[in-house]
Amino acid sequence: MEAQRSSSSLIILHNATIVTVDSDSRVFRNGGMAIEHDKIKAIGQSGDILAEFSGTAGEIVDLRGQILLPGFINTHVHTSQQLARGIADDVDLMTWLHHRIWPYEASMTEEDSYISTLLCGVELIHSGVTCFAEAGGQHVPGMARAVELLGLRACLAQSIMDSGDGLPEPWANRTAEDCIQLQKELYRKHHDTADGRIRVWLGIRQIMNSTDDLLLKTRDTARELATVIHMHVAEIPYENQLIVKTRKVEHGTVTHLEKMEFLQNNLLAAHTVWVDNAEIDFLSRAGVKVSHCPAAAMRMLGFAPIREMLDASICVSLGTDGAPSNNRMSIVDEMYVASLINKGREVYANGTTDPTALPAETVLKMATINGAKSVLWDKEIGSLVVGKKADLVVINPRTWSMVPLHDSFTLEQVTNHNENEMKFKLSSTVLN
Amino acid sequence: MEAQRSSSSLIILHNATIVTVDSDSRVFRNGGMAIEHDKIKAIGQSGDILAEFSGTAGEIVDLRGQILLPGFINTHVHTSQQLARGIADDVDLMTWLHHRIWPYEASMTEEDSYISTLLCGVELIHSGVTCFAEAGGQHVPGMARAVELLGLRACLAQSIMDSGDGLPEPWANRTAEDCIQLQKELYRKHHDTADGRIRVWLGIRQIMNSTDDLLLKTRDTARELATVIHMHVAEIPYENQLIVKTRKVEHGTVTHLEKMEFLQNNLLAAHTVWVDNAEIDFLSRAGVKVSHCPAAAMRMLGFAPIREMLDASICVSLGTDGAPSNNRMSIVDEMYVASLINKGREVYANGTTDPTALPAETVLKMATINGAKSVLWDKEIGSLVVGKKADLVVINPRTWSMVPLHDSFTLEQVTNHNENEMKFKLSSTVLN
Repeated sequence: MEAQRSSSSLIILHNATIVTVDSDSRVFRNGGMAIEHDKIKAIGQSGDILAEFSGTAGEIVDLRGQILLPGFINTHVHTSQQLARGIADDVDLMTWLHHRIWPYEASMTEEDSYISTLLCGVELIHSGVTCFAEAGGQHVPGMARAVELLGLRACLAQSIMDSGDGLPEPWANRTAEDCIQLQKELYRKHHDTADGRIRVWLGIRQIMNSTDDLLLKTRDTARELATVIHMHVAEIPYENQLIVKTRKVEHGTVTHLEKMEFLQNNLLAAHTVWVDNAEIDFLSRAGVKVSHCPAAAMRMLGFAPIREMLDASICVSLGTDGAPSNNRMSIVDEMYVASLINKGREVYANGTTDPTALPAETVLKMATINGAKSVLWDKEIGSLVVGKKADLVVINPRTWSMVPLHDSFTLEQVTNHNENEMKFKLSSTVLN
Repeated sequence: MEAQRSSSSLIILHNATIVTVDSDSRVFRNGGMAIEHDKIKAIGQSGDILAEFSGTAGEIVDLRGQILLPGFINTHVHTSQQLARGIADDVDLMTWLHHRIWPYEASMTEEDSYISTLLCGVELIHSGVTCFAEAGGQHVPGMARAVELLGLRACLAQSIMDSGDGLPEPWANRTAEDCIQLQKELYRKHHDTADGRIRVWLGIRQIMNSTDDLLLKTRDTARELATVIHMHVAEIPYENQLIVKTRKVEHGTVTHLEKMEFLQNNLLAAHTVWVDNAEIDFLSRAGVKVSHCPAAAMRMLGFAPIREMLDASICVSLGTDGAPSNNRMSIVDEMYVASLINKGREVYANGTTDPTALPAETVLKMATINGAKSVLWDKEIGSLVVGKKADLVVINPRTWSMVPLHDSFTLEQVTNHNENEMKFKLSSTVLN
C-alpha cells in the first residue's frame, strides 16, 4: 500500500475491488472509500471519491487492486479456551467436557482469561475478524481488558450454570439468582466500554446445566437490560433425550424453550444441530439467530440443517467455537469448511452431494452481514455502507494460493448503474 | 536457524523434536540427524549425533526445538488444473466436468501445463509436500520440466480416455492402443529422470471413459513396465449404476475391476467413495492403494468409508485433488479436513459422531508413510529412517496458531530406550 499523510482525520482508500455485502450486493471493480474517524463517509468509484475528498484527506491509500470486504464476525468463540488448545484432541465428548475442559476452565484466574483472550484475539485478527461473540467463558473483566487492547469489537458473556452433573466445585453451589446478580454486575461494569466496542451479554452454557428458573430469569433480565443471550442449543442427541425425559416435551431443547417463551430475537443459539422441522419453524418465527460452527460440529456434534434453516429465513452466521473443539481459530477456514461440509451433508440428508449448496456468496454473507445481525449490531457493522463503522478486511489476490482469480465476481452488470458497479458473486477462491 | 558451514557434504540438524513415523513410531524429544548428500546417515539424540559427526560436518543447523517430520506426500493432485482454480465453483458435477474442466484441459498447451504445474508445486511445497502423484493431466513433458525445476518428487501420468460421452474433439478419436503407445513413449522419455525424482505412471481417467480393452492393456502394460496405475474409482452413485447396467456386474466399478483382475497392488484408486463391504474386501485382498481427498469428496462425491478401509488394512493416503475441486492445494488443510470429516461421517454411518475416529497420528501416517507406500516409493521416502532420502518438513511450534502445544506427543516413555525417545501421539494441533 502506498499512502500520503497529513493531519486530517479523513482517510481515502482507492483502487480496490470493494465487495460491500450491502442490500444490493454491490461490488465496485475500481472502488474508493472515504473514512472519517471510525466511520464510512462515502463509497463509490475511485475517481469520484478521489475527486471529492483528496483535497481534505489526511491519508490516501492506494490498494492496488486488492479486495476490500467488511470485517468478519465470529459469532461463537470461547476465548477462555485458547490456552487449552490440544488438551482434548481425539477423545469422546464426556471425557472432553468433564475431565478436560471444565477442570481447566474452573481453575482459571482472571489473568489466565486475559492472556487466553489476547492470544485468541491475535489469531482471530489474522483471519480478518473484527468482531466476535464470546460463547460464555471465565472472567469477563479479564476478557474485557484484552479486548480493549486488541481493538476488536466483542460481545462478552460469562459461562453460566446452576445445576447438572459433574460440575467442578467452584461452580457447583451457584443459585439461579447468584448467576443473574453476577451478570448484572458484569453488565454494569463493562457494557458499552472500550469506546463502545464491548457489549456484555448473558450466558447460558447449555440446558443440561440450567434450571428452568435460571432460563426464565435470564430471559427476563435480557429484556430488562436490552441485551442478548448466548446459549449452546441442541448439540447432541443425548441432550434432546434428556430434555424429553426430564422436562416432558415431545422433541428436545428447542421445543422446551419454545414452550417457555424463551425463544426470542435476542437469542443467539450456537450449533443447533439436532432440531427437527417443527423446531426450525419455532426458531424462524421467533427470530432466533443461529451460529454454525462446522469444524466443531463435524468433530463432536453432527450435521446442522443449515440449508433448511436458511430456507426458513433463519439468520445463520459462522463461529469457530473454542480452540479445543477445532484447533484453528480462523473464520476463513470456517468459511471453507462450511462450504465443503454443507455440500457433503446433502449425502446424509438426501443421498447425494450438492455442489450448489451453500454457494460462496451465501458463506460470505454468513461471515459478515448475518454475523452482524446475529450480534444485533447490524446498524453499525456487517457491510460497507455509508454511516457504518469502517471495520474492514483487505485481501491480496496476487498470492500463490489465490492465483489465478477467475471468479471473484460475475461480470453481470447492474443496469442503470455505472459499468464498474455490479452484483457480487464471490468465488470460493476468495474465501481461501 | 543458526548454521555453521564448511565444504563437506555432511549436514547435521540438531535440537529438534523428531517425529520419525518409523515402524516403532519413535519420537526424539531432543533429536539430531546427520544427512549425507540426499540421504539420512544417522538419527538419534542431539548429543550423540553432534559428538559423532561435528568433526566432519559441512553444516550444522540448530533447529531450536522445532518439529522435524517426513515430507508430506500428496497422492492425488491435478497439476494441470491449477490455472483453472475458480472456473467451476458451486456448479453441479456434469457442468463442472463437461462444460468447464474438459474444455479447459483439452485446450492446454505444453507451456500451459508447465506453468500450471509450477504454480501448483509452489503451493504444495508451502504446505510441506515433497512428493506428489499427478492424477492424470495434460502434457507430461510440461509437467516434467516444472518438477525438474521445483525439486519435488513426482509420479506423472497423462489423462487417458478412449470412450464415453462429452469428450472434447482432441480426445474423442483415440483408440486404446493409441493410449498405450502414447504412454509408453512418455515412460521411455521421462521415467526415472531428474536424478530419479520423476516416475511415469499409467493413467485411467475413470471407468466411464475407458473400454475394457483399454483397462486390460493398461493392466498388462503396467506389469511390463513395473509401474503404477492412477485411476479415479467409484466417485459417484451414477458411475456404479452405469457399470451395473453396461458391464453386467452386481455392484459397480470395483466389482467389475475385480472380475477383470484389474485390482493389483500397483493400482492407486482415487476417492473410492461408493464401495460396499464386499468391494472393500476386494481392494484389501488385492493390495490396492486408496487416495482419500476429503475436501473434494465433500464438495462433489460423498463420504468415503475410510475407517472401514483402514480397519480392512487398506493403505489409505491423502490427496488434495485439483484446484477446481478444492481451491486449496494444501496437504495440511487436507489433514485437518480429513480428521474433521471422518469424525463427522460417523453420524452418517452410525448415527453419532465419533471424536476418536481418525486420530491425529493416523492422519499423520496417511500423509507420510501411507503416501509413500501408495506411490510404491516407501523404500526411499515416507519416514525418517537411516538410508532413506532426507525429504523433510520443519514446523515451528512457536507461532500464534500453534501456541500452546500441550500434546505434541504423549509423555509415555518407551521402556528400554533412552528417556528422550518415545512413542508418538501427535496432536491435531501439530496438523494446523
